[in-house]
This record gives sequence, structure tokens and C-alpha cells, in this order.
Amino acid sequence: MQEIKCSILDKGFVTLIDMMGDDFSAVKAARVSYAKEQSSDIERDRALIEYLMKNKHESPFEHITLTFHVKCPIFVARQWLRHRIGNSYNEISRRYTTKYSEEFYLPDHIRVQDEENRQSSYICEDDNKKEQALLLIEESYKNAYETYQKLLKLGIAREMARIVLPVGEYTQFYWTSNIRSIMHFLNLRADGHAQYEIQLYAKAIAEIFNKVCPLSYTAFLKYSYTGNILKEV
Amino acid sequence: MQEIKCSILDKGFVTLIDMMGDDFSAVKAARVSYAKEQSSDIERDRALIEYLMKNKHESPFEHITLTFHVKCPIFVARQWLRHRIGNSYNEISRRYTTKYSEEFYLPDHIRVQDEENRQSSYICEDDNKKEQALLLIEESYKNAYETYQKLLKLGIAREMARIVLPVGEYTQFYWTSNIRSIMHFLNLRADGHAQYEIQLYAKAIAEIFNKVCPLSYTAFLKYSYTGNILKEV
Amino acid sequence: MQEIKCSILDKGFVTLIDMMGDDFSAVKAARVSYAKEQSSDIERDRALIEYLMKNKHESPFEHITLTFHVKCPIFVARQWLRHRIGNSYNEISRRYTTKYSEEFYLPDHIRVQDEENRQSSYICEDDNKKEQALLLIEESYKNAYETYQKLLKLGIAREMARIVLPVGEYTQFYWTSNIRSIMHFLNLRADGHAQYEIQLYAKAIAEIFNKVCPLSYTAFLKYSYTGNILKEV
Amino acid sequence: MQEIKCSILDKGFVTLIDMMGDDFSAVKAARVSYAKEQSSDIERDRALIEYLMKNKHESPFEHITLTFHVKCPIFVARQWLRHRIGNSYNEISRRYTTKYSEEFYLPDHIRVQDEENRQSSYICEDDNKKEQALLLIEESYKNAYETYQKLLKLGIAREMARIVLPVGEYTQFYWTSNIRSIMHFLNLRADGHAQYEIQLYAKAIAEIFNKVCPLSYTAFLKYSYTGNILKEV
Repeated sequence: MQEIKCSILDKGFVTLIDMMGDDFSAVKAARVSYAKEQSSDIERDRALIEYLMKNKHESPFEHITLTFHVKCPIFVARQWLRHRIGNSYNEISRRYTTKYSEEFYLPDHIRVQDEENRQSSYICEDDNKKEQALLLIEESYKNAYETYQKLLKLGIAREMARIVLPVGEYTQFYWTSNIRSIMHFLNLRADGHAQYEIQLYAKAIAEIFNKVCPLSYTAFLKYSYTGNILKEV
Repeated sequence: MQEIKCSILDKGFVTLIDMMGDDFSAVKAARVSYAKEQSSDIERDRALIEYLMKNKHESPFEHITLTFHVKCPIFVARQWLRHRIGNSYNEISRRYTTKYSEEFYLPDHIRVQDEENRQSSYICEDDNKKEQALLLIEESYKNAYETYQKLLKLGIAREMARIVLPVGEYTQFYWTSNIRSIMHFLNLRADGHAQYEIQLYAKAIAEIFNKVCPLSYTAFLKYSYTGNILKEV
Repeated sequence: MQEIKCSILDKGFVTLIDMMGDDFSAVKAARVSYAKEQSSDIERDRALIEYLMKNKHESPFEHITLTFHVKCPIFVARQWLRHRIGNSYNEISRRYTTKYSEEFYLPDHIRVQDEENRQSSYICEDDNKKEQALLLIEESYKNAYETYQKLLKLGIAREMARIVLPVGEYTQFYWTSNIRSIMHFLNLRADGHAQYEIQLYAKAIAEIFNKVCPLSYTAFLKYSYTGNILKEV
Repeated sequence: MQEIKCSILDKGFVTLIDMMGDDFSAVKAARVSYAKEQSSDIERDRALIEYLMKNKHESPFEHITLTFHVKCPIFVARQWLRHRIGNSYNEISRRYTTKYSEEFYLPDHIRVQDEENRQSSYICEDDNKKEQALLLIEESYKNAYETYQKLLKLGIAREMARIVLPVGEYTQFYWTSNIRSIMHFLNLRADGHAQYEIQLYAKAIAEIFNKVCPLSYTAFLKYSYTGNILKEV
């Protein structure tokens, strides 16, 4: 299988590294359930997929599985791994490894608090304030990383030294999911209420979903998607 | 992918119809977790798989997924579908379909109750008793099926008419699972305490598992298998 | 805790036998998430529950758990146990027990197939046809049960003899679930597309849900319920 | 229900705040499965619980549910929330709240890396080194927190300002689980391979488990526990 890679944020990515099935797998599974004749007619397949999506018959979409390699900041991973059902994860462990060097997420913009709605924020246009904020973040990262290095030099165990590292640090994990669980993920994370950073990852997942299962993706946007940032294609 | 099909009982089967990954997928996922170097050495891969299995690090095996088409009696399906975690199912619905004709499981042997252990039974060698029992079963099936046909002729809804059909009737389903969940399935069903019929299905699943992930299967038998009917290979 | 019991069909029931939490548990869990002040004002609690339900923040409802004792026909249990997520089951095993006597579901009505919509059926008003159909069902049950008894008398193992018993036979199970999973159950089973018999069980579950968590139930009907047989109260 | 609270680390805790069932709930569920007579004899109940545990019949233990309020460092929460099956979580969100003040985990000891086994560490007895390390950690926390405050003062959104905060920061969550899932948690986390900090939390969970389900806990240690830090009682 050819990998599909999307770069996200300053140093992150999402890469589809393996996959089982396609639109037609959901069709086949549904035709077992409803014992319908197999079809070689793509229009009938499309109609069946729309019917399933419209009527919330989501189980046939569990037979399409995808494995992604993800690199994202810890605070994004913490939101991501809350998705339990139908999702498998293997994350790098900083307790054991010295292989990956530490990297930190430096935003290319700054969001300021919306004073009227404390769950909301908007992008800051004030270049002076932006520069000040980014400098503060960068210096804080640098300070934490230097402390971490000093602790290691003292012989402190990695698993203990890392407690000073910020949640802006990058982590990596393997994620295996299925199209049904991915649709739930997109409903929550490809949405304006999600944090900006995970929205970008969710958009990349949506793009890959569209590439590999275009009929299901189109029907999802049409009938099941409850978020507000993905556009019908 | 080439399908792998095993015939089971008089009219049943298990067919592997799709798959994602192989032994090496578990190795890759584990190397992310432990941030170890990729290896092109099969002996190091085998050693890592044995290490994972021995230390109950089962999550890397969730990244290998398989889809099976299964045909088995209802009483077997009822035991099978109790396996919830990491398992997806789409079963034919007798409420809707007139496509599949009704078929019933006729055993090729008879098991008699062990009087000393009520959870145990053994194969009957008495040909006379066997013939009598099989005839009784066959006639009971025939009677139930004729009633079903009469009810349909009266115009009774299929979903209601079928309440007279026996649990020995065959059903079919699609099953998507991963190697971790399959190992749990085998621990419970590829075991002398499981009912004879599902043991046969479990053995077929084990055989296919061995064909597609030989390193993982061997390590599973060596370190994780708690049943008593699969032999080390 | 006082048990709540509902009789269903001719010999079935649903009994709530244990419970953890109430409406206020979801409120407390949500206030941790959103770090809001505790409130002693039921109107603010009601508003928070409505907000959660409206915005699909369903996780706080996982902290309210219920255990039911259910007695229903096998074909109903087969639909019920398809609900995997957040659901625990312990069903009686006919392989082992001689304690419960066999009982069979005899309908008090007959449904005939809708010729225009093969997924639909309606209640038969023709008393003659009804009598004929019920007699056929009763005789088929009787025949299957007599065969079962003969097989046992021959010494055949219970697990093998029972393959002739119909899916109309009653079974029993313990079901532990949480309010979130119960809402999903109701969306699928308290709906006109579900089979009539499981609709009756779902209505009983809904009634009990309303008794023990009235704020959540009311908000569920208002904002999350996708079925069409439960009425706002 | 009376709450049970254990203090852990310098500022953390585990509090049992609600519960459904007890040892006898598992017994009742198992007696439905095996259709055995109810018993009023505690010795027969104990024997049944030991039988279940010994033979890996873990499903009856899913009918006992517990809700905990947990306060622990983020790096501990990250290990904890990896447990998906049968576990429900609601964690405080730093995106929304200004209610909880920021608090950070200051160890009372220092662990140094075992040079021979990179997955291992031991407690440092060198008071000088310990003082140096703790001072470095404290200053790094202070620096990160000051940066966070400066960013907030600039008007930066909380969800963005917090990316500089360390994984040693405390978080809080509600955790609802059942005895089966808690046993899996203890097998992995009440074990010498787990990080020291989560071991302390796991021991507190084990203690509470023992208080509320003494028969199940004793049988668990005897037959199912695979870790190495809990002692038989």
C-alpha cells in the first residue's frame, strides 16, 4: 500500500500506513445483513451506502480499518486518546527511549481569549503581542529542556526528569481505527468547539478518509456529520 | 488478497476474506512504543514478538485486523457474539431476507451426558442409539420447518413465523477482529470446556492465524494460550 | 434498593435489581470536566443536563450504572446482546443447568407481512387466521420439546439435545449498563423499525429510566432520542 | 455511601465516591449463568468466587461498579487513561476553567537511572544530589508557571498559554470502572514495571477494592494477579 502523509503544525504529521477494505467492504457486509444480491453497479452501491448512513446503520463501516502514524503535541494526544471505542494505540514511551530527540510545538500564530465566551478564542492580529507571546513560549521551552538535560546529567531517571517537560512537547503514536470510529472522531474533533490544533489533525484524517473511501465520506458529510468545519465536496 | 476457506460441520465454513498487516505490523507498532530501531533481521523480530507475548504487552497485536465470513448454527453464533471487545459483526437478518434458504445442522455423531460431571459429555459409540437420536433430530427439524412454511403461507410475517425454528439452524455473519481479540477468543473457545462445535470453528481460526502470522501464532501458543486443544507447531 | 419489575409478553420480565448514582451523578461528573461550582439548585442542574444532552456531551452519563434481570425469548436476546459498548451480560447456560424448566413464548396476537414493504408487518384482525397460526406455533413447540425430552431420555448431552429447541424459548440474563449505553439501546430498540417484541422490552427500560433519572430521561427525549415510539412526558 | 479517601504523593488523592454491588453481586450473576441455587452460606459463596477467578470466568465481576475521584499528575493520568475497556472518565478541562489553581507534583525522593537496565531505576541515597535535583525541578515549575501567568496577562487564550505547563502538573478526573477492569488495571499498574507514582495510586485502589469486596480481592490475589507488589492478606 502506498502511504499518504500530511504535514501538520510546525513539526507534526499524520501518515496512513496501512488499510483493510474500502467502500465496497461496507457494502458487502451490509448485503450479508440484509442478504441482498451482490451488485456490480456502483450507483446501487452508492445508494446503499447513503441508505446505511441516513438510517444510522453504522456497523458495516467497522469492517474498514486504517492504521495511522501520528506525530502531535502531548496536549493534542491527550484529547485524541480519549476516543476509546474501536481504537487501538501504541505511543512512544519517554521512560525507555533515548532515540527520538525532544521537539516542541511552536505556534505560527497566537489566539487570544474571547472575553465574552470563555470557551472561545480568536487569532491575534497584533504583531507586537504575537512576537512577545511566542518569545515567552520559546524561552519557557528552552528553560524546561535545559533543566531536563541537567537532571539527566545528574543521573536522574528519564521517567522522573521528564516531569518538567511541557505538554507542548511532541509525541508519536500508531493509531488503528475503523471508519465508524473515525466518523465519531470527526464529529467531535472536526468541529469549531475542538481546540484549533486537533482540528487541523482532524481535517487531515478527513482528507485521507475522502481519498480512500469517497462514497462513504460523501454520505457521511451528507447524513451523519454533526461538526461545522468540513465542507461537502 | 486470496481468500482462505475452511469447511466446518456438515454445512458450515470460516473464510478469511480480508486482512490488514502481518507479524511485522506488531513489530513496527512495538518499536514505536519502545522507540527501538527498525530491524531487517527476522530473528530480532521473532525475539521481540516472543518478548511482547511473554510480558503480556498485547496492544501491538491490535494493529493486525482480519475479516472473516462465517456460517455456523445459531447456538454457535450465540457463543461467538458474546465476544465484545475489538470485535465487529454483521449477521444476516431473517426478518428481511428470503434469499438464503433455511439449513439445519445435522451432527455426524452423538454426545452423551457424563453422569459424573454434568458439564462434560463424550461421544456415543452405540450405533443404534446414535441412529435413533439423529433420526429424532432430523424429524424435529423437518416438523419445525414445515410449520414455518405453513405460517408463511398463511401470510404471517417472517419475523414472527421464525420463532418456531430451532437453534440448530445455520446463520451467517461477517466478523472483523484483531489478533489480540482473536487470541482471547481462542483461549476461551479452543479449549476442552467449550462446546464441541465451536471448538471446531476455533481450530479453523487458529489454523488461519498460523498461516497469516506464523511468528505471532507460535509465540501465542508458547506464552499466552491457556486452552488445551491446540498443539505447538 | 427496592427492585422495580415490569412483566412483558406472556412469561417475560425486566427487573431493575441494582443501581449506582442518579441524575446528580452526571451533574457532578460534568462539573469536574467543566470545573463548575457545585450547585444546590435543581433548576441549574436541569439546565446543565439539558446542555449536555443538546451538545452530545454524553460521557457524564456513563457514571450512572444499572443492573437488570431480564427474561425474554432467545430471538429477543439475540438482538439485545448485539449491544456491546458499555454493556455486561451473564446469561443462563442450557449446557449446564437443569434448574429452570423450559418455557416458550406464545404470542397474544399475530402479525402478517406487509406485501408492499418487506421490512414491515401489521397486526392480523382475522380471528380465524390468528387461531390457526397460534395453534401451529403451539404444536411446533410441543413437538420440539417432546423430541428434546426423548433425546435426554436416550442419554444425549443437554448441549446437543437442545439444538432442536426453537428461538421462541425463553432465556434469562443479568445486564449491567450505563445511562449512555441505555440511550443508544433505546434509540435502536424503542423504535418502529425494531421487532415488536423487543420494542416492549425497550419501553419497559425507558419507563424505569424515567423513574430513576427523570431529569436525564426528559432531556434525552427532548434532545437525543432518534426513535419514534416514546412520547415526551 | 460513605466515601473512602486515600492521600497520594504530595497533593494527590483517590476517593471512592460511589459504588454498585459487592461480592454477592458477582455470586448472583454467576448463579444466573450456571443456574445454581441461591445460597445463604458465605463459605459456598467464597468457594464460587474462587472457582470463577481460578477458571478465568471474569464476566460476573463486571456487575460491580465503582466511581472514584482522582487527583494525580498529568503524566500519571496519561498512563491511567490508556485503560479503555469498561472504563469511563471525565477529566477537568484547562481550556475552560479558572476555578482550580495550578498545582505541581514535587517528589519527596529522587530516582536515578539503572545503568545496566534502561527500563529500571532506584532511589537515590545521595542527599546532596537529591537536593540539587529537587531544586532544579521546583525552579523549572516556577519558571513555567510564571510564563503561563505572563501569557494570560497578555490576553492569550488559556488553551494556548497552557502549552508551556509541565506534565508534572496535577489534573483531576472521575473514573467509573468495574471490578473486572480494575483487576486488569492492577495487573499492569500494581507491578514493579509500572512507574513508581502510578504504583502508589494502584496500591490505594487495591486497598479500597479489598475493603469493599474482600472475597473477590482475596481470590484475585490468589488466582489472577500477575503483578508483584501486592501481598496476599
